[in-house]
Amino acid sequence: MNKYWSETIKGIAPYVPGEQPRVGRLVKLNTNENPYPPSPEVLNAMRAAVTDELRLYPDPNCSLLRETASRYYGIPAEQIFAGNGSDEILAFCFKAFFDSGDTILFPDITYNFYEVYARLFGVSYRTVPLTESFDVPVEGFYTCNDGVILANPNAPTGKVISLKNLEALVKHNRQAVVIIDEAYIDFGGESAIGLIPKYDNLLVIRTFSKSRSLAGLRIGLALGHRGLIEALIRVRDCINCFTVDWIAQAGAIASLEDTETFTRNIQKVIATRDRITALLRQAGFRVVDSSTNFLLISHLKVKADALNEALRRQNIFVRLFPKPRIDNYLRVTIGTDEEMDILYQALLELVRETRETQVTLSNIEPSAKPKDGSRDM
Amino acid sequence: MNKYWSETIKGIAPYVPGEQPRVGRLVKLNTNENPYPPSPEVLNAMRAAVTDELRLYPDPNCSLLRETASRYYGIPAEQIFAGNGSDEILAFCFKAFFDSGDTILFPDITYNFYEVYARLFGVSYRTVPLTESFDVPVEGFYTCNDGVILANPNAPTGKVISLKNLEALVKHNRQAVVIIDEAYIDFGGESAIGLIPKYDNLLVIRTFSKSRSLAGLRIGLALGHRGLIEALIRVRDCINCFTVDWIAQAGAIASLEDTETFTRNIQKVIATRDRITALLRQAGFRVVDSSTNFLLISHLKVKADALNEALRRQNIFVRLFPKPRIDNYLRVTIGTDEEMDILYQALLELVRETRETQVTLSNIEPSAKPKDGSRDM
Repeated sequence: MNKYWSETIKGIAPYVPGEQPRVGRLVKLNTNENPYPPSPEVLNAMRAAVTDELRLYPDPNCSLLRETASRYYGIPAEQIFAGNGSDEILAFCFKAFFDSGDTILFPDITYNFYEVYARLFGVSYRTVPLTESFDVPVEGFYTCNDGVILANPNAPTGKVISLKNLEALVKHNRQAVVIIDEAYIDFGGESAIGLIPKYDNLLVIRTFSKSRSLAGLRIGLALGHRGLIEALIRVRDCINCFTVDWIAQAGAIASLEDTETFTRNIQKVIATRDRITALLRQAGFRVVDSSTNFLLISHLKVKADALNEALRRQNIFVRLFPKPRIDNYLRVTIGTDEEMDILYQALLELVRETRETQVTLSNIEPSAKPKDGSRDM
Repeated sequence: MNKYWSETIKGIAPYVPGEQPRVGRLVKLNTNENPYPPSPEVLNAMRAAVTDELRLYPDPNCSLLRETASRYYGIPAEQIFAGNGSDEILAFCFKAFFDSGDTILFPDITYNFYEVYARLFGVSYRTVPLTESFDVPVEGFYTCNDGVILANPNAPTGKVISLKNLEALVKHNRQAVVIIDEAYIDFGGESAIGLIPKYDNLLVIRTFSKSRSLAGLRIGLALGHRGLIEALIRVRDCINCFTVDWIAQAGAIASLEDTETFTRNIQKVIATRDRITALLRQAGFRVVDSSTNFLLISHLKVKADALNEALRRQNIFVRLFPKPRIDNYLRVTIGTDEEMDILYQALLELVRETRETQVTLSNIEPSAKPKDGSRDM
């Protein structure tokens, strides 16, 4: 703390991203990055964009990128906004659509950043509890509010909302903007982009960091009614007119144009996810149904923080969320098959070891026995 | 306007950046870009950063970049913050150091974005008028306030504040953060970075867009006391943890390491600036003393908007600011010698033509004669 800090900053807990450890050999399954590299076409386009022209400001409107996205998504370019990652766009949404005093809704378990944005920009919020099975109860969002934010599929649960339910939610909230954060939609579920022509209160956010293997490049899109896009442009032009650099624009365009690599990588991730889900369930793990590139898992006997610590010692990084209801779960990114096999073997070993230790411990000191892992569900 | 817009966004006039025209051959002297390309070392470093690793999030803390900047500026890395251009960092400053209800000070004529930030974030401001000769009257900033922002050299005047005066200003404002935006300092004037060890309320902002020929890459730095830097980190982590992509980090590092190209390009710009200043003054232009890579010029007889229009018709882009006191000036970026010669010849021709037209007109209709160009000074 420092005497020069604003009151807002003194009182806020910023978002804590997953670690970006810099050790040599590790199995990094903690920040939902794609295990497969970007398409060679994307890398070529970026190299080609490294020219003397970098002395000039980039196109602030990302026109070529928006035109390419327009062809890809079948939405007019004027209804598309490009930003420096989807997080930046989500932050802009708070200034664009909500005032301090407004109350917005999001689930009790979702992307932590929504709460951080609300606190930073002084917007009130109410959380709607997920069901016991971690589903989003859409009817819970039919109440009076000034805005709704949903991740679909949700994070860190991985569960998807059906398009029918989502449309019902958008319809019941015509007074307010409904923001659907589709960071993981390419791995499962049906996009709400198809609903955009019908609803002027629907904004869909996309990122190139997950399904497009471009976390290191920082590209996000927003798609929605022209009025909503204009509000985002106004916010951007009150903060930083040139958020997306020349090279990122070039890489993003090439990514949208190479559908083959994109589709193949997604199929590989999905196949790995489904295989590992089955294996972990056989090994006594509860695995939440995932439509994403990660799994939320919990062991019936061994606590998540113990597993997390033990995995770290083996240089396997997964993520733990110290939040009610999910603090006994690990969120595990889907890596390559090899990485997932290393994780799976390590987990098998740990739950076996711990079972043995427990047996020993319980003979000596019964109170040291860990609580049932499923306490929160 | 749209019913879903926030009240803030409904009422605000965003910053209007200089045009990025996409016509073929033009003389682009409107956004203070560097006429010389980035160093080949910088381009090589960026190409080398285009790898499969782009699938991973970038280092959110830009550690290597900050360490390089630390060696370059002689300030510990913990006292340096990197962002997606200096505009982003300036916007972060408003959330980091000011609350709504606070009142900050900046000059009446300065970078327009300061006012836009203040309005966006609900921070009050008072402007301190520049002197008749467009100097910053530092004593005007000794009054009660919650923050000061100064561009040094100032834009769009180009005039510099001496380090002695700046230090006096920082000393008289120990209750508040003093932000010095040194976007143009490499072209003239003495940096306030040397004062950082003495004052914990001083924050210096730098950009790679002007002197480093990297406007298209989006890199800015802030240097100051560790407490100020921590506040900026908190704001960033409440908005977008990964603001600077891998390639931009690589390019920025290489730029700091190639001092030779950097110094040579700056010397060329300064030489051109001084040559053109002398020529324009001979031709009847008022040219404000510039310590930057642009000139603020006004003709004693011909109005700036007429000159601006006529130049545009010749595909020469300069910038006009529709603001009191400077609305009869053109801001002209220093381009290559060839570009400046084209501009100079065009201006010569225009003031000669207009003089002839005026003479004719004044014979017929005296009231059509333009007012004296220097009305605001």
